[in-house]
Amino acid sequence: MVGGKGLPLVSAERRLRDLGIQLPAAPTPFGSYVEAVQTGNLLFLSGMLPVVDHKPKYLGRVGRELDAEAGRDAVHTAALGALAVAQEYLGSLDRVSRVVRLGIFIATDGTFFDQPGVADGASDLFRDIFGSERSAVRTVIGVASLPLDMPVELEVIFEIDS
Amino acid sequence: MVGGKGLPLVSAERRLRDLGIQLPAAPTPFGSYVEAVQTGNLLFLSGMLPVVDHKPKYLGRVGRELDAEAGRDAVHTAALGALAVAQEYLGSLDRVSRVVRLGIFIATDGTFFDQPGVADGASDLFRDIFGSERSAVRTVIGVASLPLDMPVELEVIFEIDS
Amino acid sequence: MVGGKGLPLVSAERRLRDLGIQLPAAPTPFGSYVEAVQTGNLLFLSGMLPVVDHKPKYLGRVGRELDAEAGRDAVHTAALGALAVAQEYLGSLDRVSRVVRLGIFIATDGTFFDQPGVADGASDLFRDIFGSERSAVRTVIGVASLPLDMPVELEVIFEIDS
Repeated sequence: MVGGKGLPLVSAERRLRDLGIQLPAAPTPFGSYVEAVQTGNLLFLSGMLPVVDHKPKYLGRVGRELDAEAGRDAVHTAALGALAVAQEYLGSLDRVSRVVRLGIFIATDGTFFDQPGVADGASDLFRDIFGSERSAVRTVIGVASLPLDMPVELEVIFEIDS
Repeated sequence: MVGGKGLPLVSAERRLRDLGIQLPAAPTPFGSYVEAVQTGNLLFLSGMLPVVDHKPKYLGRVGRELDAEAGRDAVHTAALGALAVAQEYLGSLDRVSRVVRLGIFIATDGTFFDQPGVADGASDLFRDIFGSERSAVRTVIGVASLPLDMPVELEVIFEIDS
Repeated sequence: MVGGKGLPLVSAERRLRDLGIQLPAAPTPFGSYVEAVQTGNLLFLSGMLPVVDHKPKYLGRVGRELDAEAGRDAVHTAALGALAVAQEYLGSLDRVSRVVRLGIFIATDGTFFDQPGVADGASDLFRDIFGSERSAVRTVIGVASLPLDMPVELEVIFEIDS
């Protein structure tokens, strides 16, 4: 694979190993839906929650029951779940040619405004794995509540090598 | 049409008839936008509200002014609107090869956490019509308020047979 | 270019000039992400905030600290930023064949319901520039809070002439 400026793209699977990151088992749905859908060369993922073994790692809102550092770790946890789903679906993360879009939803009570710093918990991980030349656009939103009282939710669209 | 496991896909139009579902007239916009845009073989729909004849069927937030059952019916109503828009645009729902993504927004005051159960009001209907082999990814979010004080909003991306 | 009904599409760049609209410098990120990603002939933009020179033009929630008119102007400001990002990425807005989707997020305290009127601050601008035959679908949501306490955020997907 060759990156946008003619440089070879870093191998995402090698980066995972170099960073000593063990992906968790891919999360499973909380309702009647699936975790990944491919259409053309886009792979859409369901909103990923900060779960470990299908149980919430954190409960509460960022800036209220949880501080920003917990929120950031929650987003990181959701991002590991997204990578696990993509790896399971694709066979290898090296088939990802681009991270297209991150949608990051953070439960707040309306008085917390460092959503970007929390969201970097996902963006930084994706940059470390895929390199900044495959960086995504992102939309970061503070919302009233998330499923089962979890603090964050992460949506991802990947572009897949055809 | 043939499904992912080589099985013939169920006809969505036949399923509608078998289930005795009468689609409403397709909703019309509340502002300067359109209800459906096709790009390539993706059909994007505007956020569908729980309206009947352009009037809200429900007002209020789920878990506050409305209970979960009303929220579930509101999502079901919005999903019928989405099907009506797609049918009008495409001529027939049998042109839908996949439901790609559902985005489900539920107005809450921050103390309601069974958003997934409410969201199943749309997911279950889509599964009944399109079969589980065409199931979508989904993102479910609790938000502060929705247009005109309606309790839910539903975003859909369909994949169209080319 | 020819529009959907065989009519020539208006030139977006000419419309900008005719309306006397000067686009601002393209906004820059508030974290580790990029402002635009093209995949196939879709151009995804990051959530655009109402900033001028990387500083918030407005702070607060619509219907609480800000009135609807300020909200509408904030959405308009974010939309100008989106056009600036697209113009910088594409070289010319005349390469936009369709505005596919607008996602408009408005910070509210849960008692403000004219989100559609506020959202028209973006939809009307896009209609003036691209013509109604290139109108987008849209999803309008009232959310608890937005980055740095800004009142609105705007997500855009464009379709690009191939």
